[in-house]
Amino acid sequence: MSLDAILARIDADLNPALERLFDLLAIPSISTDPAHTPDVRRAAEWLRDDLASMGFDAALHDTPGHPMVVGQYDGPGPHLLFYGHYDVQPVDPLALWDHPPFAPMLEDTPKGRVIRARGAADDKGQLMTFLEACRAIVAETGRLPCKVTVFVEGEEESGSPSLVPYLKERGQALKADLALICDTGMFSDDVPAITTQLRGMLGEELVVTGPRIDLHSGMYGGIAMNPIRVLTRILAGLHDDQGRVQVPGFYDGIEELSPELAAQWAGLGFDEGAFLGEVGLSQPAGEAGRTGLEMIWSRPTAEVNGITGGYTGAGFKTVLPSQASAKVSFRLVAGQDPIRLRERFRDWVRAQLPPDCSVAFHGHGASPASRMDITHPAFEIARRALSQEWPGEAAFIGGGGSIPVAGYFKQILGMDSLLAGFGKDDDAIHSPNEKYDLSSFHHGTRAWARILSGIAGS
Amino acid sequence: MSLDAILARIDADLNPALERLFDLLAIPSISTDPAHTPDVRRAAEWLRDDLASMGFDAALHDTPGHPMVVGQYDGPGPHLLFYGHYDVQPVDPLALWDHPPFAPMLEDTPKGRVIRARGAADDKGQLMTFLEACRAIVAETGRLPCKVTVFVEGEEESGSPSLVPYLKERGQALKADLALICDTGMFSDDVPAITTQLRGMLGEELVVTGPRIDLHSGMYGGIAMNPIRVLTRILAGLHDDQGRVQVPGFYDGIEELSPELAAQWAGLGFDEGAFLGEVGLSQPAGEAGRTGLEMIWSRPTAEVNGITGGYTGAGFKTVLPSQASAKVSFRLVAGQDPIRLRERFRDWVRAQLPPDCSVAFHGHGASPASRMDITHPAFEIARRALSQEWPGEAAFIGGGGSIPVAGYFKQILGMDSLLAGFGKDDDAIHSPNEKYDLSSFHHGTRAWARILSGIAGS
Repeated sequence: MSLDAILARIDADLNPALERLFDLLAIPSISTDPAHTPDVRRAAEWLRDDLASMGFDAALHDTPGHPMVVGQYDGPGPHLLFYGHYDVQPVDPLALWDHPPFAPMLEDTPKGRVIRARGAADDKGQLMTFLEACRAIVAETGRLPCKVTVFVEGEEESGSPSLVPYLKERGQALKADLALICDTGMFSDDVPAITTQLRGMLGEELVVTGPRIDLHSGMYGGIAMNPIRVLTRILAGLHDDQGRVQVPGFYDGIEELSPELAAQWAGLGFDEGAFLGEVGLSQPAGEAGRTGLEMIWSRPTAEVNGITGGYTGAGFKTVLPSQASAKVSFRLVAGQDPIRLRERFRDWVRAQLPPDCSVAFHGHGASPASRMDITHPAFEIARRALSQEWPGEAAFIGGGGSIPVAGYFKQILGMDSLLAGFGKDDDAIHSPNEKYDLSSFHHGTRAWARILSGIAGS
Repeated sequence: MSLDAILARIDADLNPALERLFDLLAIPSISTDPAHTPDVRRAAEWLRDDLASMGFDAALHDTPGHPMVVGQYDGPGPHLLFYGHYDVQPVDPLALWDHPPFAPMLEDTPKGRVIRARGAADDKGQLMTFLEACRAIVAETGRLPCKVTVFVEGEEESGSPSLVPYLKERGQALKADLALICDTGMFSDDVPAITTQLRGMLGEELVVTGPRIDLHSGMYGGIAMNPIRVLTRILAGLHDDQGRVQVPGFYDGIEELSPELAAQWAGLGFDEGAFLGEVGLSQPAGEAGRTGLEMIWSRPTAEVNGITGGYTGAGFKTVLPSQASAKVSFRLVAGQDPIRLRERFRDWVRAQLPPDCSVAFHGHGASPASRMDITHPAFEIARRALSQEWPGEAAFIGGGGSIPVAGYFKQILGMDSLLAGFGKDDDAIHSPNEKYDLSSFHHGTRAWARILSGIAGS
C-alpha cells in the first residue's frame, strides 16, 4: 500500500471527514442521563452503520446498559483491537457554553482552528481519527492491511458498568495481538505522546461515629468525643512531613523508574512552575526528593477528596455531630495491590480509633496501575508515526489518572494496550465549551494511517 | 407581708394562672420567621397588658427587630430587674409533634403532669412563674415589696440582634441592684439549682484555599497541595493527647475552682457514666485529670462544629478541592478574653500554613464567660427559697452553654445576675413536643414569691 497516497487522500477528504464527525457530535449521547437513552443508542447505530459502510462486519451488542458497537474486519497480518467510547459527559452548566453543545462548529482561536462541541475531544473526535484512517486506507487500497476489531462502548462517562461483564462473557472475540486506545493526550502542544503507564486507583469512604445523636456543645462540649476530632486526627496522619504516605506497607513492591524512562522524562523539560502556576500554586506538594513528573506519573498518592461533618451551612451552630465522614483515594503504581492496600488502610484507621468511636467503610473503585510492555514493536512504530506528524519527537509518558479499560484488557484478556491520543490540556473535556484542535483531528488521522501501515509491514 | 398567705393564693390560683399561660403559649411568636412578625408583636402586647393589669407602668419599646416589653413597678426597697424572652423556636419538623405546638394542653406522663406546647419551658412558662408570683403578692398585699423592672425581649431565639444596641442606648433605665434571669434549669428532677457560672463562646470559621480551582486528582494528585490535608492537619493539632487545647496562651488567666464550689459540685453525685451513656458514650473525652462537671462547667474547650471540603455527595469524585473550611468554637471560662483568643487562634493557624495556601477567617460570636458574685445576699436567699420548694437542697451549679444577656448586663450596665430556672433535661426545648413540668410552673412561682419576699426583707 502506498502510504503517501493514503495521507494525500486524508488531506483531501478533511472536509467530508469533519462533516461525518459533526453528524456524530450532533447526537447528545449523554450516557448518565436516562432521558438521553434513545440518543445514546442513535450514536451507537450511527457508528455501526459507518463501520459497515467501510466493509466492517458491524453490530450492536446489547448490555443491561448501553450497547457495545463491535466491528470486525478480517484482514491479513496481525490482529488489532481499537477501543473508544461514543458516550459523552453531561453539559451542565449549560449557561456557561458560548454555543449549543450539540451544534458542532469550527471556530478560529488565537491557538488555531478548533472543533467546538461536547464530545469533540472526549472521545468522538479521537475515535473518529482511527475510523477516518481506516476509511482512507480502504478507499485507496481496497482493504485494511491487517485484521482490525473496533470496539466502542457507550458507558465510559458513567462508570462502564457493563464493560467487565461483557469482557468476561464475550471478550474472547475481541482478543487481539494488541489493543489501540485513543482517549489520551499530547505531552504539550508540539510534543505528541504515547502513554505507557497509568496509575491505578483505590477509593475508600469512612464514616466515624461518636455519640448516638448530635449534641449541643454547650451541654456536652468538653466531655463528649467529637468524631470530627477523631477523623481529622486520622487524616492528618496520612502523610508525614516529607509527604510520604503513612499507611503501613504502602510503598511495598514499588519499583523505581527505569534509567531509560527517567532519562526520557527528564528530557521532556517539564515546567513544574508553569504547570502549578496555571492553577495558582508554586510548590510541589508531593514526596520530598521526587521530580514533578514522578509525583504525577510514577509515585502513589493519598488524597482526601471530600470531608464533611457537623453543621456546614451559613452561620454557626454549636453542634457536636454524631458522625463525620471522608472520601479518600489512593493513586496506585505498578507493584501495589489495591485489594491488599484497602485492608491495610482500614486496619490502620481502626487502630487509631479512641474508645466510644466506631468506623464504617464503604469501598469504591479498586483498580491496579497499568504498565505497558514497551518492548512490543508497535511502540516504536507509533513513536515514529507521531513524531512525523508533529514538530516535536513523540514521548513515552506516564498518566496520573486511570484508564480502567487498559487494565481490564490486560487482566481479563491478557492483552497489552498502546495508548495514543491527541487531546490537549485546554480541551475542556467534562467542562463547558469542550473543543478538539482541528490539527489534532487531522494529524491524528494521518498518524493512525502511519501506525496501521507500519504494523502491517512489520 | 404574709408569705404563707401569698403561697396559699398561688396554690389556689393555679388554674387561672395556667389559663393565662395557655393564652400566651397559643401565640406562635416565632421570632426568626418573618411570617410570624405580627404574632411576635401580639405576644409582646399580651405581656404589656398583663403587666399593666398588675399595676406595672408597661410599654413596648420598638427596635429594628421585635419590640422589648418593659414594665416598671415603683416599689420600696432594692431594685430588681427580671429578664425573660417571649419569642420561641420554630416548630419544624411539625410531623414529629404529637399535638399542635400552639394548642397548649396538660398531659399526664409517667413522670407527672406536664404543660405541652412550643415555648412551655423556653421561655414563656419560666417567665410567667415570675409574673404569677408578682400577681399573687399584689393581690394579697396590695403592692410589690420592692422596685421591680420587668424586661422581656422577643429575639432571644434569633440571636438577640437588638439587645446590645438597646442596652447601650436605653439600658440605664433598666439598671437595678440585681438582675433575675429565668431561663435555666434544675440540676436534676429533685435538686433545684442556681447557675452561678456560665461559659462564654468564641466562634470562628476558617476557609483554607490551595489551588485556584478544583483539580482532578488523576492529573494533579501528588504534586498539588490539597487544602483538606492542610485543614485536617491544623485541626488535628487543636488538642494534644491529654485533651488540652494547643492554641498558645489558651489557658492563661484561668483560675482553679474554689474549694467551696469544688466540694459542692463533688457533693452533687454527678453520674458521668449515666450522662454519657444516654448519648451512647462511656468515656469522658476532655482534659485528663478533670472531673466530668469541670469538663462541662468550668474548663474551656475547642470543638470543630462543622467541616466541609471537596465532594460530599453520593458516590465518589476524585477531586482536589480549591477550598476546605471548618467552623470551630471555643467554650470559654472566667479569665479568658474572647477577642484576644480570636487573634491567638488566627495567628496559630496562619503559622501552620504551608506555601501556596491562604486562609480567610470569619468571626462569629465572641462572648466572655460569666461568673456571678455569689457573696451577694440574694444568692443565699434564693438557695433557701428553692430548697424549700423541692426535695433536694438547691445547688450552685455551672452551665456549659452561654446566656449572653448575663454577660451584657455585666459589661454594659455593671449589673450582676442571679440565674434561677426550673427547666428539666427532658423538656425538649428547641425540639418537637416541648413541655414544662406543671410542678416546675407551680413551685417556680412559689419560689419567686419566697425570693422577692426574702430580698425585700433582707
